[in-house]
Amino acid sequence: MFQFKGSDILHGSQFSRPDLECLMDVADDFRKRVEDHQVMDLLRGTVMAALFFEPSTRTRLSFETAMQRLGGSVVGFSSAESTSVAKGETLSDTIRTVDQYVDLIAMRHPAIGSAAEAAGVAQAPVINGGDGAGQHPTQAMLDLFTVRQELGKTDGITLALCGDLKNGRTVHSGVEIYKHFGIRLIFVAPEALMMPAEVTDRLRVQGVEFEETTDLEAAVRKADALYMTRIQKERFSDLAEYERLKGAFILTREMVESLNPRLVTLHPLPRVNEIATDVDSMAGAAYFRQARNGVFVRMALIALVMGKV
Amino acid sequence: MFQFKGSDILHGSQFSRPDLECLMDVADDFRKRVEDHQVMDLLRGTVMAALFFEPSTRTRLSFETAMQRLGGSVVGFSSAESTSVAKGETLSDTIRTVDQYVDLIAMRHPAIGSAAEAAGVAQAPVINGGDGAGQHPTQAMLDLFTVRQELGKTDGITLALCGDLKNGRTVHSGVEIYKHFGIRLIFVAPEALMMPAEVTDRLRVQGVEFEETTDLEAAVRKADALYMTRIQKERFSDLAEYERLKGAFILTREMVESLNPRLVTLHPLPRVNEIATDVDSMAGAAYFRQARNGVFVRMALIALVMGKV
Amino acid sequence: MFQFKGSDILHGSQFSRPDLECLMDVADDFRKRVEDHQVMDLLRGTVMAALFFEPSTRTRLSFETAMQRLGGSVVGFSSAESTSVAKGETLSDTIRTVDQYVDLIAMRHPAIGSAAEAAGVAQAPVINGGDGAGQHPTQAMLDLFTVRQELGKTDGITLALCGDLKNGRTVHSGVEIYKHFGIRLIFVAPEALMMPAEVTDRLRVQGVEFEETTDLEAAVRKADALYMTRIQKERFSDLAEYERLKGAFILTREMVESLNPRLVTLHPLPRVNEIATDVDSMAGAAYFRQARNGVFVRMALIALVMGKV
Repeated sequence: MFQFKGSDILHGSQFSRPDLECLMDVADDFRKRVEDHQVMDLLRGTVMAALFFEPSTRTRLSFETAMQRLGGSVVGFSSAESTSVAKGETLSDTIRTVDQYVDLIAMRHPAIGSAAEAAGVAQAPVINGGDGAGQHPTQAMLDLFTVRQELGKTDGITLALCGDLKNGRTVHSGVEIYKHFGIRLIFVAPEALMMPAEVTDRLRVQGVEFEETTDLEAAVRKADALYMTRIQKERFSDLAEYERLKGAFILTREMVESLNPRLVTLHPLPRVNEIATDVDSMAGAAYFRQARNGVFVRMALIALVMGKV
Repeated sequence: MFQFKGSDILHGSQFSRPDLECLMDVADDFRKRVEDHQVMDLLRGTVMAALFFEPSTRTRLSFETAMQRLGGSVVGFSSAESTSVAKGETLSDTIRTVDQYVDLIAMRHPAIGSAAEAAGVAQAPVINGGDGAGQHPTQAMLDLFTVRQELGKTDGITLALCGDLKNGRTVHSGVEIYKHFGIRLIFVAPEALMMPAEVTDRLRVQGVEFEETTDLEAAVRKADALYMTRIQKERFSDLAEYERLKGAFILTREMVESLNPRLVTLHPLPRVNEIATDVDSMAGAAYFRQARNGVFVRMALIALVMGKV
Repeated sequence: MFQFKGSDILHGSQFSRPDLECLMDVADDFRKRVEDHQVMDLLRGTVMAALFFEPSTRTRLSFETAMQRLGGSVVGFSSAESTSVAKGETLSDTIRTVDQYVDLIAMRHPAIGSAAEAAGVAQAPVINGGDGAGQHPTQAMLDLFTVRQELGKTDGITLALCGDLKNGRTVHSGVEIYKHFGIRLIFVAPEALMMPAEVTDRLRVQGVEFEETTDLEAAVRKADALYMTRIQKERFSDLAEYERLKGAFILTREMVESLNPRLVTLHPLPRVNEIATDVDSMAGAAYFRQARNGVFVRMALIALVMGKV
């Protein structure tokens, strides 16, 4: 089993199913304690650096809340502008300096591989909070946790992933994790934004059940849970094509009610318009609960990495 | 009586005199404890989001200090630039996400009604820290508290409000509150920046004693306390008019010494030049003590809203 | 002896040798406690403002970590943009307001004398975290502490200071402190960037042993410790001169190995290229440990100033 204590958390592929089951069990325990208003001080005296070299209020606040709910404290920054990077310092030197101050580093950086580079020079564990088009493992963990919480299990369920599957960091980290859990996958995207062949080839080798489609309605009908992501206009060279397609990848209340009223809907947020707001009040609309789960999963991960559970 | 516990704090008009007496009594108790260096942990384990969609160091630091003095912790941001608003997210979605993380939201936003909108979607209580030209109820509360602390009472005192009464958010929130406290009001402003008729009409209906004048010296002579605010150049279409008037609305030491040496002077800060700096050392210059009172009043409000007193 | 409790920390010249020995002893005690994972709450209930009117992630994070490791909490800002300075408020008014909120102020500001100005109006102790081309006393303290930790003593050692000695704030604060400790100094700089005559004149009067050279290799050979700083291109009117000189002031591994393998190397960081990265893995490369020492020294200073040790 993965030795969480003292380890860097860089990539979804680091974890086996038992590792993730353990993480989710701890997260669910913390959820109960938070909802029960228990004051926790597992991490009193521990300092985490939240180094956000690009803005991400959502992920930053989630990590900071997680650390503080455990009784720990936080230092950091929320954009690269105010850092020594502006004075010509290398990432490696910045990390090595902050590493002298703190017990744990959570970071987001626009460059692929930056978290691994940081982990290579820091003594403190590094948690990757997103490295550009690379990985975002805590998002994948909280997505899986939400599926488990909402459906009560993972084995045998059908999860549809919809949106820009070609470029989506979240879905790439996700499939590295879902594949262990007996989850059938449906990839829903316009032809131009289908899951890359290297991903689907790997899934085939690993014997993961999946199908691909351009038809959101068909996927809604079949899926137990639908993970919506945004289709970004800037990915299309042909704007007319974008305009034609985008309507086909918007989830509406009518669609859910007529095709699959029990559908559980997830979204990494922020959304723009790919889930109509009248879906929000449906029982299966889980995307804000998913944001909440992010705090519990990050609490669990921080506590495990610091050797406190 | 107002049920503070679990409530949103949006508007000065929400509160009756007993509500505000209760708040001020708690604030004064907290003042004593802070001055006595007592460590408080009423809010240990509680997390507040300080969401400042526009910069306001003063109000943000005051809220954050208040929360930390109670033993709680804070996450947040100090400008909208680093938020998902930049990615096209609605205010409602931003608030609903943060609401999943924290126990309490204090916010400032440039749009009138934004705090009410946030309160409409958040489960956590929302405290309005200023919504554009709308309300700023905690400022009004701390102003009242300062009058009470400085003069020992509110009934029967005369409070002059001077400056841009037409556009001033602070004074509009203030009159909603002062009217319950037996305070006689003097409105001092250039003709063009007088208190709007809808405000004065309402005061007449409610039987509040007030008068209007363009003569600061006359007001200084009559008042027990003077609340100075800034006259903003940009409000004048005729700059010559501005230049002519502005001198008439600057408080000097000479004016106070010759007309009313016991005058208590308040100001929401930051000031530019509407109170000469040689007033600062006078016994009645209460504006920095007023800033201090802001922490105690916000501590009281947070503790009441969280059901901890 | 200097009365730390309640005092402002503005300038290296405030301290005698016993003052600094005391500070370093406390810092070393805190180092042991942190390395032993002891949770400290000496400053529970105490709030520090970290007012950074210009960005300095390194110094800000070091102060904030120090405060939090002592159990205290922090409010503040990391650039002047989001402050009331933008609304025309004077530094004095900003400080007097924040002074009402907190128990201690740590600040950085681009103007020489700004920390002294702040100390003049604040009741809370002010710690100067750098005032433009003026002083940066906590940097000088942590540099001295690092020399003592690395070499086990200060008396009789030879410390070479290399770089822009004419303009370097760090080295100017440093000599105010090193002179008490029986340290022989070597100043290494291009002719144009030599230590100013007023500094060397003062050292002569005080009987401090020093020499000046333009030859880095000679200094490396003689020194026990070398304090490298950056030579800034913008200081040269003649760029050809800069290009010619800069190579002569870059420390390489080959230089250290061939001339003085036991050399202890310091640097205030961030570095650009004045220490080659292959020096980093040498036993004497102390610059990241120096950053770590900064937290312990600031913890000691904060605890002393707050009267908690």
